[in-house]
Amino acid sequence: MDFNVMRTGRAVLHVTDLEASRAFYDALGFIETASDDENIYFRAIEDFAHHCLHLKLGDIPAVETISYKVGSEECLDELHTLFVDHDRNVKWMEKGTQVGIGRTLRVEEVSGMTIEFYFEMEHVERMMQKFHLHKGAKVQRIDHFNCAVPDVDKAYDYYIHELGFKCSEFTSIKGSEHIWAAWLHRKPGVHDVAFMNAVGPRLHHIGFWLKDPMSLIDCCDYLAAAGYRDSIERGPGRHGLSNAFFLYLRDPDGHRIELYNGDYYTGDFDNQPIEWDLDDPARQTFWGHEAPDSWFNEASTLLDLNGNVVPVSEPKLAKIKPNTII
Amino acid sequence: MDFNVMRTGRAVLHVTDLEASRAFYDALGFIETASDDENIYFRAIEDFAHHCLHLKLGDIPAVETISYKVGSEECLDELHTLFVDHDRNVKWMEKGTQVGIGRTLRVEEVSGMTIEFYFEMEHVERMMQKFHLHKGAKVQRIDHFNCAVPDVDKAYDYYIHELGFKCSEFTSIKGSEHIWAAWLHRKPGVHDVAFMNAVGPRLHHIGFWLKDPMSLIDCCDYLAAAGYRDSIERGPGRHGLSNAFFLYLRDPDGHRIELYNGDYYTGDFDNQPIEWDLDDPARQTFWGHEAPDSWFNEASTLLDLNGNVVPVSEPKLAKIKPNTII
Amino acid sequence: MDFNVMRTGRAVLHVTDLEASRAFYDALGFIETASDDENIYFRAIEDFAHHCLHLKLGDIPAVETISYKVGSEECLDELHTLFVDHDRNVKWMEKGTQVGIGRTLRVEEVSGMTIEFYFEMEHVERMMQKFHLHKGAKVQRIDHFNCAVPDVDKAYDYYIHELGFKCSEFTSIKGSEHIWAAWLHRKPGVHDVAFMNAVGPRLHHIGFWLKDPMSLIDCCDYLAAAGYRDSIERGPGRHGLSNAFFLYLRDPDGHRIELYNGDYYTGDFDNQPIEWDLDDPARQTFWGHEAPDSWFNEASTLLDLNGNVVPVSEPKLAKIKPNTII
Amino acid sequence: MDFNVMRTGRAVLHVTDLEASRAFYDALGFIETASDDENIYFRAIEDFAHHCLHLKLGDIPAVETISYKVGSEECLDELHTLFVDHDRNVKWMEKGTQVGIGRTLRVEEVSGMTIEFYFEMEHVERMMQKFHLHKGAKVQRIDHFNCAVPDVDKAYDYYIHELGFKCSEFTSIKGSEHIWAAWLHRKPGVHDVAFMNAVGPRLHHIGFWLKDPMSLIDCCDYLAAAGYRDSIERGPGRHGLSNAFFLYLRDPDGHRIELYNGDYYTGDFDNQPIEWDLDDPARQTFWGHEAPDSWFNEASTLLDLNGNVVPVSEPKLAKIKPNTII
Repeated sequence: MDFNVMRTGRAVLHVTDLEASRAFYDALGFIETASDDENIYFRAIEDFAHHCLHLKLGDIPAVETISYKVGSEECLDELHTLFVDHDRNVKWMEKGTQVGIGRTLRVEEVSGMTIEFYFEMEHVERMMQKFHLHKGAKVQRIDHFNCAVPDVDKAYDYYIHELGFKCSEFTSIKGSEHIWAAWLHRKPGVHDVAFMNAVGPRLHHIGFWLKDPMSLIDCCDYLAAAGYRDSIERGPGRHGLSNAFFLYLRDPDGHRIELYNGDYYTGDFDNQPIEWDLDDPARQTFWGHEAPDSWFNEASTLLDLNGNVVPVSEPKLAKIKPNTII
Repeated sequence: MDFNVMRTGRAVLHVTDLEASRAFYDALGFIETASDDENIYFRAIEDFAHHCLHLKLGDIPAVETISYKVGSEECLDELHTLFVDHDRNVKWMEKGTQVGIGRTLRVEEVSGMTIEFYFEMEHVERMMQKFHLHKGAKVQRIDHFNCAVPDVDKAYDYYIHELGFKCSEFTSIKGSEHIWAAWLHRKPGVHDVAFMNAVGPRLHHIGFWLKDPMSLIDCCDYLAAAGYRDSIERGPGRHGLSNAFFLYLRDPDGHRIELYNGDYYTGDFDNQPIEWDLDDPARQTFWGHEAPDSWFNEASTLLDLNGNVVPVSEPKLAKIKPNTII
Repeated sequence: MDFNVMRTGRAVLHVTDLEASRAFYDALGFIETASDDENIYFRAIEDFAHHCLHLKLGDIPAVETISYKVGSEECLDELHTLFVDHDRNVKWMEKGTQVGIGRTLRVEEVSGMTIEFYFEMEHVERMMQKFHLHKGAKVQRIDHFNCAVPDVDKAYDYYIHELGFKCSEFTSIKGSEHIWAAWLHRKPGVHDVAFMNAVGPRLHHIGFWLKDPMSLIDCCDYLAAAGYRDSIERGPGRHGLSNAFFLYLRDPDGHRIELYNGDYYTGDFDNQPIEWDLDDPARQTFWGHEAPDSWFNEASTLLDLNGNVVPVSEPKLAKIKPNTII
Repeated sequence: MDFNVMRTGRAVLHVTDLEASRAFYDALGFIETASDDENIYFRAIEDFAHHCLHLKLGDIPAVETISYKVGSEECLDELHTLFVDHDRNVKWMEKGTQVGIGRTLRVEEVSGMTIEFYFEMEHVERMMQKFHLHKGAKVQRIDHFNCAVPDVDKAYDYYIHELGFKCSEFTSIKGSEHIWAAWLHRKPGVHDVAFMNAVGPRLHHIGFWLKDPMSLIDCCDYLAAAGYRDSIERGPGRHGLSNAFFLYLRDPDGHRIELYNGDYYTGDFDNQPIEWDLDDPARQTFWGHEAPDSWFNEASTLLDLNGNVVPVSEPKLAKIKPNTII
């Protein structure tokens, strides 16, 4: 492996009403770096990079791609070689094709997700200490993607053995060798990406990190007062798995956003993955609350490299109980 | 009116396993003032008074009485006159009869609840600044009682016009002159007692005030880690009505405890009650979460002055929808 | 005593640059109810009353009056009788004379402070649950006045015995019967007014209550980022006396504002005042930090009923050490 | 460079009263992994590694070594080669020599500091979700070392160019090419080590990360109540540089501990160091508070590889003003 995937970088989401989306993400504290009639580029408070969320006006709500930042331009070429060797569909997006970002490599990966790699992104002002301009959830930075896939074992193997991810925590099933769900990272936190056994491939949510638990509580009040009560889907609560103090929101198109605070350092090479049994009640919700059905059943549709909807299939592992995915 | 009811004072709860109850309330941060084989007397962090929670070993989980502190010994005699005039059953508990507390007057009030009045309570050390001894929810003080009664109008009238309470907030029903629920106070916060239309009379919960929202979040983690995950019934969340940031717990006997932070000053004589429509979704849960069925259906059984179970009856107002009481 | 002083109500401050003051108090989260070329009327988040802070364009920074809300219009007449009997200078301000407020009684009280009493104030919208409009310190409500006076004993006696205040905490001097400082209340918190032994009469600060400790921390970041670093005079810290988690600010004219969270219930008639020795290091700053000299030496000038500057005199008790007033 | 320094790992401090130190660090929430008559091994809440703080009974308060975790055992041999090539004094500590830790390499580095590298450390239980056992500051993990050295340029060059550290922030002097202070990291936060222009080499402080700002505030209350008021040296406050919400403590031997929350992600290879001018008032204390003299003048004495006190010398750059180091 001659490449170095660094971290979760950005997402490109198709939305059907740009103004409705602008108002929603603005209420969460995102900072608008640039926009035109068909696009908004948002960054979070810590970011010196141009954007971590690209909203694009589309016919249907969908995920165009989720992107990882790599360590150099050369990494992109190495990744290209890898994916071509593995017969995956790939597509270069040359510098200048997309606003604020350099050359990118897009791939239909092993689970059928459209993912993208890039090194270069335009630098802009870091707003971290402009505290008087922070608002809503004061979103600090993008943290992870959570993907619903029908075959977690397959995704796990590829990301671990081919792409160099490490596993921080996973859900096992008593009496089975299959993995129900896995949290994988490159940066030394709990995850850059998680895979869960479910109808897929679909994007379950994008996770953003907050600077403290009170920002999450304040965000609930802010959103409810600003007319977004119906956008609050689940939480606040604590996940046993990942130790996240979480809140799940649905944007105006139904894309799911996780705001969270918690995490811990996982960078030691002798860090051992934490194993959770699927039936452990503390795994999903440490405080014992049930999640609503929508959280288990709904997720964002993906587009392939040609912009067509990616078909989904049933999960490999049978649904054992309603609380199946975190 | 020649008496002066000051505030919610204490509750006397019958519990069936004293050690289980001790462990639970200790985990919430209550301080044990005294105890013997059949009783535990707990106070909260702010208290210089002997106790605000008296747990008594009993055959069944039940509420012996809920008590209000008055402004003087003379108030007790004036209250006695009032209740006798109104043909209510009354009973004096002379000083020395109960540990830590002076002479009390017990009454079966207009809704059939057994309530008690007292002025004198033994003084003990205030633990407010012994921060190193605080733990769990760091419960600061008792705040209010919430009562399920079949006829809220009747309770409202008596407490307002005979006992001198004021109304801070209430729930009305479109097209009706009846009150669905009312929050009444003597001290200048949202309430010392609330009445809600439901099967009753029963005690729905006892509310305790926390010093900040993080104590409530920390309490969830503490309780879940200490083995009390199943004790967390509802929350954390925000009530529209009362503005409380709340958490509802069930003690080992099922008695319901509300921990909350929020409240606001209501002491101005021109303070106008806030009216909420029963159908306003923000009333119950400002952030839009549903409460579990148990929260609507279950409440603590009361004992009368002779120690017999108080019979309950169906509420006067028809149940309009599941989310009927806050 | 046939009157009922209810609580700290409002302050009327003379400021020399209305725009500079507007920007400062707006940054703290005050809500502007009304204004013209020479006045701004601010209320806090909880307030249904027109204002708690009236800024008036003046030649010099000064305090025109500090005001207490009473229980009825009749109270004003009773207070008038009291002060006239005691040969104090008094002045009626008829309804219509001042914006948003009814008839008021102004008095040069026993320490030479100009204080005011009122019952009626115009009602406006309570912004408590418009969370999306809160900002900066999210100031919830006015809480207390802190007055530097040369003779604390005299002020203490008058407020306790003539005006019906109660003492929650006080600072004594070993081997002396004099009181160094006293915290007095009508509403059941630590104070509506405090008196401290110092050059006076002057207004040391106006205290405003915040809803939680994080609002205070967030306020420091907000103010510093918004260009108000030099306005932060002292804190954040914890007072032993009063248990307040505090922050002291200086407005553009040097008027001192305390933002704080903490407080506790003092409404029981058998509540005993907490005595602190002047030499107890935990009294002033529970965490052990020194206050800057400005905090001890500087305070706002008062105006008398005729608008003239009130002369000050040296304190009765000798200055024993730099940390003389809290 | 064939080695991989991963992160700040542990410190070995000599203390003169083991029981006094045990009580102090226990109050901060450290967890005792092991101890005997002359040693205590503490870990923090997140740690699965045996310890991050080794206290050793000594004749004088001193620092025996500060240690970095590396990526493999082979890294240690490569580092040995590097330091020997550069004529630095080195010393192997074989596995079994020290409790809980494998083979280590100790070195007198370019500034004369005794530092240590290790890969292996015994695994123990991670207490992260045993929330009911957390207390005091609830210290989550070790974060960084801050070193006072006479020649920051020299340290900077060696750590950047020889050891592979990256610079996140630094303090420059107008009109000079010298660096006044530098924050260097291997893990993707603000720092694993900082160097400041001062009398040295000495250890200024060890930084520990807290999970949220309220843990820091609660810690102040806890420490003051538990009798450690005099241990609080500076803060709480916000550093402009590093964005840390900080509290500085002195342990019973005067070793300085920083508790902090804040930090941000610095792992992108195109992350540009933030430059602060020495005269920028926001650099040291974003909120504008002065630090006490002790914070500038006092630091811990170091021991060399033979256990002798390391002599100190005056800084290369003239002291320009009292507020010279952050």
